[in-house]
Amino acid sequence: MKRISILGSTGSIGTQTLDIVRNNPDLFKVIAISGNTNIELLRKQIEEFKPKYVAVYDKKNAQKLKEIVKNDGVEILAGLEGLNAIATIDEVDVVVTSVVGNIGLLPTFNAIKAKKTIALANKETLVTAGEIIMNEASKNGVSIIPVDSEHSAIFQCLNGNDILNVEKIILTASGGPFRGLKRNDLLSVTSKDALKHPNWNMGKKITIDSATLMNKGLEVIEAKWLFNLEIDQIDVIIHPQSIIHSMVEFIDGSILAQLGIPDMKLPIQYALTYPLRIKSNMSKLDFNQIASLTFEKPDTNTFPCLKLAYEALKIGGSMPTVLNASNEELVYLFLNGKIGFYDIPDKIEKAMKRHNPIKNPSIEDILLVDKETREYINNSF
Amino acid sequence: MKRISILGSTGSIGTQTLDIVRNNPDLFKVIAISGNTNIELLRKQIEEFKPKYVAVYDKKNAQKLKEIVKNDGVEILAGLEGLNAIATIDEVDVVVTSVVGNIGLLPTFNAIKAKKTIALANKETLVTAGEIIMNEASKNGVSIIPVDSEHSAIFQCLNGNDILNVEKIILTASGGPFRGLKRNDLLSVTSKDALKHPNWNMGKKITIDSATLMNKGLEVIEAKWLFNLEIDQIDVIIHPQSIIHSMVEFIDGSILAQLGIPDMKLPIQYALTYPLRIKSNMSKLDFNQIASLTFEKPDTNTFPCLKLAYEALKIGGSMPTVLNASNEELVYLFLNGKIGFYDIPDKIEKAMKRHNPIKNPSIEDILLVDKETREYINNSF
Repeated sequence: MKRISILGSTGSIGTQTLDIVRNNPDLFKVIAISGNTNIELLRKQIEEFKPKYVAVYDKKNAQKLKEIVKNDGVEILAGLEGLNAIATIDEVDVVVTSVVGNIGLLPTFNAIKAKKTIALANKETLVTAGEIIMNEASKNGVSIIPVDSEHSAIFQCLNGNDILNVEKIILTASGGPFRGLKRNDLLSVTSKDALKHPNWNMGKKITIDSATLMNKGLEVIEAKWLFNLEIDQIDVIIHPQSIIHSMVEFIDGSILAQLGIPDMKLPIQYALTYPLRIKSNMSKLDFNQIASLTFEKPDTNTFPCLKLAYEALKIGGSMPTVLNASNEELVYLFLNGKIGFYDIPDKIEKAMKRHNPIKNPSIEDILLVDKETREYINNSF
Repeated sequence: MKRISILGSTGSIGTQTLDIVRNNPDLFKVIAISGNTNIELLRKQIEEFKPKYVAVYDKKNAQKLKEIVKNDGVEILAGLEGLNAIATIDEVDVVVTSVVGNIGLLPTFNAIKAKKTIALANKETLVTAGEIIMNEASKNGVSIIPVDSEHSAIFQCLNGNDILNVEKIILTASGGPFRGLKRNDLLSVTSKDALKHPNWNMGKKITIDSATLMNKGLEVIEAKWLFNLEIDQIDVIIHPQSIIHSMVEFIDGSILAQLGIPDMKLPIQYALTYPLRIKSNMSKLDFNQIASLTFEKPDTNTFPCLKLAYEALKIGGSMPTVLNASNEELVYLFLNGKIGFYDIPDKIEKAMKRHNPIKNPSIEDILLVDKETREYINNSF
C-alpha cells in the first residue's frame, strides 16, 4: 500500500491520479490533497477519498472550505505553508507534484528533503531549478519519477540500461494545433484556437505551451536535469500521431521507444507503481487501427519558443528561470485575451536579453529572479 | 576480452560477426570458426583471424582445407564431431550459433552443457527443441542471447522489466518480397523472385522463409521458448519498413519497441557485448528521412506457413520438429527449382497431418522425427 499526497488534486493530472487510486484501492491510499480555487471539487474529493489533510493555496478559499467540511475530521491547511506541510507528512510515501507552474518548486524541494519519492508532474520545478533539485534528490537518495508522458517514455526506455550507453534521447512532439501553419497564419490566433489540441486532453496552460512548442522546450530542460544529459544529447522531432511518446538512441545505434495511446493515466500510473506495472482499464494501442506513424523536423521559425528554451539552457544559471517565469505569465495573458500569440516568444526573448544570468543560483536567487521576471512581464502590458 | 567460437563463419551472420570482431580487436578474440563448402573463404578467415580451431562439416572439404593450411598452426576438425568440439572449447566464452538449419541443434545443446554463453542465430534449434534447450540452459545457468533482429528487439525491450508484467509481444514482419500479392499471383513464382527481399540482406534459406512468412512462424515458436510465453501472448504484425524490429506490450498498456536501420550487425553486436553496448560504425536511423511507418495484418490465406507454425506450436511435442524439417527440405527443393511456391505450405501441412506427435520428446526423438520427416519430403518429389 503506497500512501500518497497529491499537490494539485483538482487539475488534470490530479484528478487522473485520483482515478487510478479509485481503481486500485488495495494499492494506494490518499493521505493529502490540495487545490486552489475549485472548492466544490475539493469537497467531493474529501468525501470520496477521505484524506487526513487538505491544503488550499488561496487563503480565503481555505477558510470557505473549512466552513463547509468542519465535521469531516479533515485538517484544512492554507497557503504555501499548507502545500509545504502536505509535501512532508511523515506517513506519506509518494508525493505527486501536479500543481501547475512555479508554485510547485518549494513544496517539491521540501518533499525531497523529507525523503519522499516524487512523482513529478510539475515540470517547472526542474526547468527553473533543475540542478538544485537533482542535487538535493541525489543527496537524500530520493527517486524522481517523471509523470510527463515523454519523460516517462525515456525513463521506461532507460530501465535496465546504462546511462553511459546513451547516445541521445529523442523527445517526440505532436506539433500542437498549429502544426504546418506559418507565421502569417498565426498572427491573429486566439486562445480558443490554441486550446484545440489534436491528441492530448490536458490543462489550459500546457495546451497553450503545446501550441507554441514551449512545452517541448520546457521538456528539453526537464530532460537535461532528470537524465543528466548534455544539451546536444537531446533532440526533438514532430510526430503528429503522439503514439511514440519518446525514444532513446544508444551508442550502438539501437533505439528504444515507448508507445501507447495518448492518455496521461498511463505515465501517472507507472510513476505510482514503478518499478512494477499493474493492469489498467485504459484502451490499448491497436496497430491494425494505425494508418501510419510520421515524423517531421520542428519548424522553429514559426515556433521560436523551442529555440529560446535551448538558448536558455545553453546559457544556464538563472536563465531558464526567466524563460519559465516569463512564459508562464505570458500564457496567462494570452489565455485572458490580453496579448497576441507572437507576444509570447517576442517578450520571452526580451526578458532573456535584459537578464544578467546568475551562475549556480541558490533557491532564493531563483525565487527572486522568478518574481522579478513576472513583474517585468506584467508591467509590460 | 571475450573469446568466441563461431559455428558457421562463412554464412551471412558468420561473416558479419567477423566484421564486428575486426572492428573491435581489443574486445573479441576468435578461437574457432566453422564452415561447410566455402573452403576458400575459410582459408581467408584463418589467415585474418588466426583461430586455433576450424571445423568443416563436410569431411572431404575438411581434408582439402587441411592440405591448404597445413603450416598455419590451426587444427582442422571434421563433421558433426568437429562442430561439437568447437562448441565446447574450454577457453571460449561465447558460442555464436550461426549455422543454418537443424544441424545447429546438437552443437548448441553441447555448448550449453559446457556452460557457454550462447549468441543464438540458429533459430531452428529452439523451433525444434525449444523446451529441452531452455531447460538445459536454465539447469546450467547459461544465458541464451538472441541474434535474430526480432528477438534481440524483444530482449532489449524486456531488459530491466519483469516478464510477469508482459501482456504480449508483437513480432514485426516486413511481409517479404510478395507482400500485397494474392495466391493467384504467386502460383508460378520462382526462387529468383523470392530472393529479392525488400529490406534485409540475408542468407538464401531465410530469405525464402521471409517470402512464405514461415520465417515469422519459426520466430513465433522461437519466442515462445526464449521468453517463456503462452501462444496467445505472441502477435505478428506486418510492418513493411522494417524499422521497428519488434515490441513488448506490458499489462498496463505501455509498449516498448526497439528500432534501428535493418542491419543484422546491430543485433549481432548486442549479443556479443550484452549487457553493455559499444559504439558502432553502422549508419544511424534518421527520423527526418522516414516517410512513414505502417502496419498491416498478416494475410495468412495467401501465406499459410504462418498459420501452420502456430498450429504446430499449439499441438506441441514433436510437431514443430516436423514443421521445421519439412520446411527446410522444401525450401531447398524450391531453391533448386524442383517444386513450386505453394508446394511448401501444402507439403508441410501433409507432413504434419501424417505425424503422430510425441509428447515431451527427448533429443533423440527429435533427431529421429527430423530425419524421418526429411526422408518423407524428399521421397515425395
